[in-house]
Amino acid sequence: MGKIKAAIIGATGYVGVELLRLLLNHPGVETAAVSSVSFEGKKLSEVYPGFYNIFDRVLCGKDEAIAAGEIIFASLPHGICEPLAKKCLAAGKKFIDFGADFRLVNEEDYKKWYGGEFAEKALHNEAVYGLPELFAEKIKAARLVANPGCYPTSVILGLAPAIGRLGDFPPVIDSKSGVTGAGRGLAQNLHYAECNEAFAPYKIAAHRHLPEIEQELSFLAGREVRVSFTPHLLPINRGIISTIYFTLEKIAGLDEIHALYKDFYKDKTFVRVLEKGETASLKNVRFSNFCDISLHYDAHVNRFIIVSAIDNMVKGAAGQAVQNMNLMFNLPEIEGLGAVPPVF
Amino acid sequence: MGKIKAAIIGATGYVGVELLRLLLNHPGVETAAVSSVSFEGKKLSEVYPGFYNIFDRVLCGKDEAIAAGEIIFASLPHGICEPLAKKCLAAGKKFIDFGADFRLVNEEDYKKWYGGEFAEKALHNEAVYGLPELFAEKIKAARLVANPGCYPTSVILGLAPAIGRLGDFPPVIDSKSGVTGAGRGLAQNLHYAECNEAFAPYKIAAHRHLPEIEQELSFLAGREVRVSFTPHLLPINRGIISTIYFTLEKIAGLDEIHALYKDFYKDKTFVRVLEKGETASLKNVRFSNFCDISLHYDAHVNRFIIVSAIDNMVKGAAGQAVQNMNLMFNLPEIEGLGAVPPVF
Amino acid sequence: MGKIKAAIIGATGYVGVELLRLLLNHPGVETAAVSSVSFEGKKLSEVYPGFYNIFDRVLCGKDEAIAAGEIIFASLPHGICEPLAKKCLAAGKKFIDFGADFRLVNEEDYKKWYGGEFAEKALHNEAVYGLPELFAEKIKAARLVANPGCYPTSVILGLAPAIGRLGDFPPVIDSKSGVTGAGRGLAQNLHYAECNEAFAPYKIAAHRHLPEIEQELSFLAGREVRVSFTPHLLPINRGIISTIYFTLEKIAGLDEIHALYKDFYKDKTFVRVLEKGETASLKNVRFSNFCDISLHYDAHVNRFIIVSAIDNMVKGAAGQAVQNMNLMFNLPEIEGLGAVPPVF
Amino acid sequence: MGKIKAAIIGATGYVGVELLRLLLNHPGVETAAVSSVSFEGKKLSEVYPGFYNIFDRVLCGKDEAIAAGEIIFASLPHGICEPLAKKCLAAGKKFIDFGADFRLVNEEDYKKWYGGEFAEKALHNEAVYGLPELFAEKIKAARLVANPGCYPTSVILGLAPAIGRLGDFPPVIDSKSGVTGAGRGLAQNLHYAECNEAFAPYKIAAHRHLPEIEQELSFLAGREVRVSFTPHLLPINRGIISTIYFTLEKIAGLDEIHALYKDFYKDKTFVRVLEKGETASLKNVRFSNFCDISLHYDAHVNRFIIVSAIDNMVKGAAGQAVQNMNLMFNLPEIEGLGAVPPVF
Repeated sequence: MGKIKAAIIGATGYVGVELLRLLLNHPGVETAAVSSVSFEGKKLSEVYPGFYNIFDRVLCGKDEAIAAGEIIFASLPHGICEPLAKKCLAAGKKFIDFGADFRLVNEEDYKKWYGGEFAEKALHNEAVYGLPELFAEKIKAARLVANPGCYPTSVILGLAPAIGRLGDFPPVIDSKSGVTGAGRGLAQNLHYAECNEAFAPYKIAAHRHLPEIEQELSFLAGREVRVSFTPHLLPINRGIISTIYFTLEKIAGLDEIHALYKDFYKDKTFVRVLEKGETASLKNVRFSNFCDISLHYDAHVNRFIIVSAIDNMVKGAAGQAVQNMNLMFNLPEIEGLGAVPPVF
Repeated sequence: MGKIKAAIIGATGYVGVELLRLLLNHPGVETAAVSSVSFEGKKLSEVYPGFYNIFDRVLCGKDEAIAAGEIIFASLPHGICEPLAKKCLAAGKKFIDFGADFRLVNEEDYKKWYGGEFAEKALHNEAVYGLPELFAEKIKAARLVANPGCYPTSVILGLAPAIGRLGDFPPVIDSKSGVTGAGRGLAQNLHYAECNEAFAPYKIAAHRHLPEIEQELSFLAGREVRVSFTPHLLPINRGIISTIYFTLEKIAGLDEIHALYKDFYKDKTFVRVLEKGETASLKNVRFSNFCDISLHYDAHVNRFIIVSAIDNMVKGAAGQAVQNMNLMFNLPEIEGLGAVPPVF
Repeated sequence: MGKIKAAIIGATGYVGVELLRLLLNHPGVETAAVSSVSFEGKKLSEVYPGFYNIFDRVLCGKDEAIAAGEIIFASLPHGICEPLAKKCLAAGKKFIDFGADFRLVNEEDYKKWYGGEFAEKALHNEAVYGLPELFAEKIKAARLVANPGCYPTSVILGLAPAIGRLGDFPPVIDSKSGVTGAGRGLAQNLHYAECNEAFAPYKIAAHRHLPEIEQELSFLAGREVRVSFTPHLLPINRGIISTIYFTLEKIAGLDEIHALYKDFYKDKTFVRVLEKGETASLKNVRFSNFCDISLHYDAHVNRFIIVSAIDNMVKGAAGQAVQNMNLMFNLPEIEGLGAVPPVF
Repeated sequence: MGKIKAAIIGATGYVGVELLRLLLNHPGVETAAVSSVSFEGKKLSEVYPGFYNIFDRVLCGKDEAIAAGEIIFASLPHGICEPLAKKCLAAGKKFIDFGADFRLVNEEDYKKWYGGEFAEKALHNEAVYGLPELFAEKIKAARLVANPGCYPTSVILGLAPAIGRLGDFPPVIDSKSGVTGAGRGLAQNLHYAECNEAFAPYKIAAHRHLPEIEQELSFLAGREVRVSFTPHLLPINRGIISTIYFTLEKIAGLDEIHALYKDFYKDKTFVRVLEKGETASLKNVRFSNFCDISLHYDAHVNRFIIVSAIDNMVKGAAGQAVQNMNLMFNLPEIEGLGAVPPVF
């Protein structure tokens, strides 16, 4: 079998360029085309000079990218991927969307949180939520994958094993993300002098990843699950930590729940359930596709605390997309994602 | 009236040197002596060269410091302040302890969390918990003040106005602190290359500030209050954000609770209850004695979220101690603490 | 005598808001007006929420600011201050310009480096270069002061004592500046994720501060002095370090040159010539108006190395302007600038 | 041919663990053993938890490491590698030393700068200075390679093409390094709160890399070359920028010198001579084995400025060692070093 021809639409955004890195390092992939609206006609290495002599390809337009690839990755603002996906599928290609357009199942949710409508309902019915640890079989068969949001990835993996046993108390999810999650677009709060030595929550109980989290947790639980969700902006480049507080319906000790998690993820390379006593930390997952999960029990309030750590650019975006691609093309899930990451 | 003669024991720790800065800038204080165990005999400006030509005083021993001051500030490891405080009070001096020795009222708590006993029970009975917004009258009359911990300051101020109306649900307190809170002592996780671009929680449900938080909240509530408390280490120098989730016994809207907070702190210069829609942020309190509090209501889970932000070195330590000193000496609370802080 | 009525035009830029801080902390100044083109009509505390409850004044227009102040500080893009300065002087006010419009004496230099002409030649003749350690007498008598650039301040103070004894070798000046020097305007290279963990020189031998440096050094030397000047961008908020390499016309040892520097600055509060063996460091001057200078001699190539450190926002901009204002109004030079700065 | 069996002595230092990462990612290498004095008997993943489930091997002693490997990498304090190297060579193994023990040819230099003597003169005669772009042929034949220092790598590669044409003026080398260069050992100036937002030079004209730089430049020039060398500590994890100022014996323009550099490095994968007008930057070489070089000419003082950028942990240490290993084992120089690095 030849190499997979992959094309990236939106290759100069932060997720796009991280995906490009992973694809170039992937032994089974040929990067067929990179496309950009803002920089079409320029070399990618003019936008990111670190690619000089590594990848000096000229950025093309969308149509050229679609024509060149067997699989098309789109990292674009939400609201514009329906026609692209339709076109790709009609042409016999596979499509992975980094945006939110195919994540929410319920059109009402999409209207409320993103302000648009579903023009192509069939596509939405077909789209698979691309969290491989939970939905690998569906992903293998999919033509259209909605790559999960970064916060939802950390939260859903953190809660999935226990979701059927949660008590009434809606979990509290306190998440902290590095700045690459906010993307390449300039903003005053991301201006170095203002982001440096600063820290704050934002969009409290109002972040667009909230309905995505609740949709997937509810699906897994088989009942409606609501959560408190507060994202915070960390003055670091990469990584998300979600600290999650929850109770169980019936009392259980740390040993039991830890064993439950260990078992749930026993065949999942990219989820590391840490030993009891260890604490998940951003620095141990940077540049990797791992989701590290540590479990803690606070007896005096009878609550469990889960710490879930990912690299928002890898497991939270580009790495997860490669993992999805591997599944869609019957490659080993780890292919191209197994490089040992730097410690510092 | 002459200037207050102030002496610092433990002047070369991070809190000590921050206190020195505030005292030197205080128009009503004469810094009578600075003492250090590690650097006795050296000039303070040899330890902190930024003080060159500003404050080149030689660091003395404890006894000399006690003799020189009317008020003695001690920034020392816990477990050694009882004899110091006793000596000071016996000599007619006032004493403010930055450590935990006089914060916990219950000896059993102290034993459990700090491993020691109360040798001088009378002193513990006399000691006042130095949170001026709540206990100003007691502080004015005090000879011995236990300066609150940094996390507890952010949490107690954040919850105090609502404490009598809390529901059964133990509040979730997710706190994040800059590294100066960990002090000057070298440690692998504070080594620049390992702390930089990193983030993680630590001592989950096991931090020594937990009993202090619960003690004071319980006192204010008039009943036992338990909380979930998770501290995290931020790769920045200064500041604490506590994100606090709680429910009310009886349903109330944001307007009502916001008004409650505004009223509760209406005469408190150093607590700024932000307008609805605003979010408290570390960068707005750095280098100041402010505690900024913002209120948020998440209707879909019927929870309130409080964001409480302080500078751990000022309102969380040295600034609060100066505020306490002002009260103890009948000075205006703001004296020496009103300088406009830098934005960057 | 009443307080000086000061007005700031361009109060929402980084230099403007730092100046506001210093003026609010200055016992002899009344901040009469703050003006902003971008945010006129808004409160300053809406732009910088840290000023909430501290300074909630509404930002006015230029004319209003000029009318309100006895002294007008202008922190604006270059090329627009001539008419403002003219208007102020005509109205009997004093004017301090943070921009480059009045720094360069030679119109040809201005044309070459800034692309404009001198419309008001009399103003340029009258303007005084506001480096108080060198030109205090002129500043005292001035109505119009050109506040020096940040890099030039660090360099000129670093070389002034030795300037008459330099050898033929044009000094090499390798400077590094924190990002506030680049201002509030958004730019890709100042976007947090791209500036963080990065470092590089820029505008090598082509920075607009080069002619300013050479002009002043030549004036001090009484002959043409040329230099190599390379600025670099540091991923920190504040501070400039200039590392300066030079030779002397006649051989001299470190003792002699160190004594020369000590003597040259013996009455200058804000220049600290460090002891031999010490090295100037950014962290010792942050938030202060100090310029720290250390001297080093490399016998094996017979060169001196000067390290000159300032806070670019204080001694490199707003603090120096306050120092100039003090001189212009016969106040002690240190007034409002003597607060002990934080160590961290 | 089977895989190369590689062993690391000193695997838990920063260079050691970075080397481990590269070796684990190298398709032609089997990591045969990792050794540590401080942590012998522990798993490497206990020291660096990021390696959990990736590499949980137990850290062994030196002798075991030597027995296990065909090639031994030693990352140890200077002064202790002579007996190790001797033992390895006697046992038919190859040896790459990250320390300084075999870098200096002249024993007098070693005595002066490191305070020791050459006990094994034959080893010193045999040792090859492992800068592959300059000494590939010797390295291919070597059993004992002295891996260059990080600063010298950036400087020597930056000056080598022009070295024969330098004028009398000793080059000025102003270098800036990230903190991993200072290693894992705790130190007050590397404590996060003190290193963060700070910057300063250190060991001015007195750094141990100075004699190494001068030795190699003199060798390349065929005459004694002296330089000014000032290292600075950057508050970032990785990377070195050297800004180098020099003159030529005979006048030449930028075009000519740029062409000279392009030609000199035309077959060297890991040296990228940037196009005229571009400037080398740390962020473009992070995590890679590249040395980026940009050339600049300052006509008004008739000087060239070279900016040389490397990742101190890769091209300045572990990557260069792998490159040397590749040469010593007749592998393509790029093997294991070609992964596209992350942009952020």
